[in-house]
Amino acid sequence: MSVTAAQGFRAAGVTAGLKASGNPDVALVVNDGPAKSAAAVFTSNRVAAAPVHWSRQAISDGRADAVILNSGGANACTGPEGFQNTHSTAEKTAALLGVSASDVVVCSTGLIGEQLPMDKLLPGVEAAAAALNNDGGADAATAIMTTDSVAKQSRFDGAGYVIGGMAKGAGMLAPGLATMLVVITTDAHVEAPALDMALREATRVTFDRTDSDGCMSTNDTVVLLASGASGAVPDLAQFSAGLTTVCADLARQLITDAEGASHDIAVTTINAASERDAEVVSRAVARSNLFKTAIFGKDPNWGRVLSAVGTTDAAFEPDQLNVTMNGVQVCRNGGVGDSRDLVDLEAREVIVMIDLNAGDKSATIWTNDLTHEYVHENSAYSS
Amino acid sequence: MSVTAAQGFRAAGVTAGLKASGNPDVALVVNDGPAKSAAAVFTSNRVAAAPVHWSRQAISDGRADAVILNSGGANACTGPEGFQNTHSTAEKTAALLGVSASDVVVCSTGLIGEQLPMDKLLPGVEAAAAALNNDGGADAATAIMTTDSVAKQSRFDGAGYVIGGMAKGAGMLAPGLATMLVVITTDAHVEAPALDMALREATRVTFDRTDSDGCMSTNDTVVLLASGASGAVPDLAQFSAGLTTVCADLARQLITDAEGASHDIAVTTINAASERDAEVVSRAVARSNLFKTAIFGKDPNWGRVLSAVGTTDAAFEPDQLNVTMNGVQVCRNGGVGDSRDLVDLEAREVIVMIDLNAGDKSATIWTNDLTHEYVHENSAYSS
Repeated sequence: MSVTAAQGFRAAGVTAGLKASGNPDVALVVNDGPAKSAAAVFTSNRVAAAPVHWSRQAISDGRADAVILNSGGANACTGPEGFQNTHSTAEKTAALLGVSASDVVVCSTGLIGEQLPMDKLLPGVEAAAAALNNDGGADAATAIMTTDSVAKQSRFDGAGYVIGGMAKGAGMLAPGLATMLVVITTDAHVEAPALDMALREATRVTFDRTDSDGCMSTNDTVVLLASGASGAVPDLAQFSAGLTTVCADLARQLITDAEGASHDIAVTTINAASERDAEVVSRAVARSNLFKTAIFGKDPNWGRVLSAVGTTDAAFEPDQLNVTMNGVQVCRNGGVGDSRDLVDLEAREVIVMIDLNAGDKSATIWTNDLTHEYVHENSAYSS
Repeated sequence: MSVTAAQGFRAAGVTAGLKASGNPDVALVVNDGPAKSAAAVFTSNRVAAAPVHWSRQAISDGRADAVILNSGGANACTGPEGFQNTHSTAEKTAALLGVSASDVVVCSTGLIGEQLPMDKLLPGVEAAAAALNNDGGADAATAIMTTDSVAKQSRFDGAGYVIGGMAKGAGMLAPGLATMLVVITTDAHVEAPALDMALREATRVTFDRTDSDGCMSTNDTVVLLASGASGAVPDLAQFSAGLTTVCADLARQLITDAEGASHDIAVTTINAASERDAEVVSRAVARSNLFKTAIFGKDPNWGRVLSAVGTTDAAFEPDQLNVTMNGVQVCRNGGVGDSRDLVDLEAREVIVMIDLNAGDKSATIWTNDLTHEYVHENSAYSS
């Protein structure tokens, strides 16, 4: 499991004292090669954290030797001092590993608008480097947790190679606007441009379609490192499919662990004129607070689905819309369908299917309900 | 106050039995002239209720003799039968008043996806017609309430004329996706095209910038009737300003009465490159669940403001953003400003000001916080 499942990687997770809780808060993942190919995708938020600015540049040449991650502080909206702190963190990591700072990716997660305590972080980086080992994936996955209740790890076995990964966070877990950080490793031999293409395709249909509360982070980062240590040169379509499986698994773990949530909801739009239309419609429903509170109340209120669909510019005729909730077609041709009393919303899993009758494309957005716990988590603990 | 403040109008509010509570649920507003000018704006939701489809057509010639309104059912997503019910309601009203059905505006509010009980509604229309009087504005304002705790009424005194209005609803009051219905009357003599222009300008900067929970209704309607009974022909700029005052007053009453809310929040963006940019930025913040829960928790978490600003395409540089919360500049140049401990969020009124440093335009969105009560209201009572 996790980032040391593939050959050629060491990892560690240690406690630097950034968190008041005393839980582990610094993780390090190192690619020992022989190859050092890398790709990454970052938040599209224009107010991006210092480590995002740094790492975008670091990854741009398609090579990375290590990823250093900290929880306990997002290092976002921290100005030139914050960027300098990211730079120092990369320099420190690079010196300890004997690599170039420009090949060190940095990730941070925690509260926005506070400087990191560098007097604690830099010794933490030293401790992490000292603790590196071929079995450190689980420790690393633990050290990046904020309010996650479990560490998120995944593994895919390809033809002669392995893809492994770890993840933390999700909007709904976000007392301090926690962020989604993901590190994925593989011992397959894949060049950086192909890694980049595979990663973008995988994240497009997994993390990008995970929308717990509609709030985009300043720090979201997904990094993929390839060591080539297995010697296997994979079929790219198969590798891409495996990578998508790992991303989907991790994304699903994020949604399932959203502490405030009582339902995991798949909003699937079918028969859309385009995949974009299907995604837009599913996302509009997934972001409707009225829909999300209805699911929390176990109320199959399909009117709230239709009213959200109606705010989009997707191609459809209102009188040709169908909505199915957990298998019951509650809305037929834009009007009343089967009895809503037939819908059972007791289980945690909810599947809402919207039929636009306008084409043959589809897309799913994974989300949660909106609960008392969400309000509690995000109002009580943030500063 | 209300829709009978101006001369030339009668109104009534009666109980037809549409609501389980036994509260009044049918309202009627009649323009006795001499003029019958009218204008209206409707929800832009593409899944529009039957009465919206009807009323859009009815108002298109710039004339309306009456507005018949019911609470206790939205008549949305009800197919051809729902439209027929709206038609029958207009026909019944017209027959009782001796006017044309095509000059009767119909408004409904309540749960989506259920047919109106016409055996109760039509006798209710009869009762309302029988109860019409020059002092019926307050009764009408009461009969359109759903979970509103008070009736919303307003009045503006112009030069020789009066503008009065009533309103109900707001997303946050919405156990059954309640809707915003507004009727405004004036005894000024204003032709329909000018009425239309004034109404669009007034709603653009008032109701359109009231965003309690980001959920757009299928039934929103704002109707303006002008009787000309005062004989006054107003200066149009002054009339438009007075109308905007009434709309702003009613919009403010909607936000203040949002039952689940504990804070009324004005999100103002200043120094934007365009008014559109200012509105987009304010709305992005007003719709952030993380921001809204932070305010509920009395936490001046400006990082959540910046992360919402960063999702927009407005013109700004991240390192030139300033944020002031209740007068304290907590964010300066995109980074840490004055201590967040200085911000007092005890009072119900909260003013968040975002300075984009990119121009000289501004706009305000009025919203509420996201509270346990909101979740409770919208999960427990909807079906």
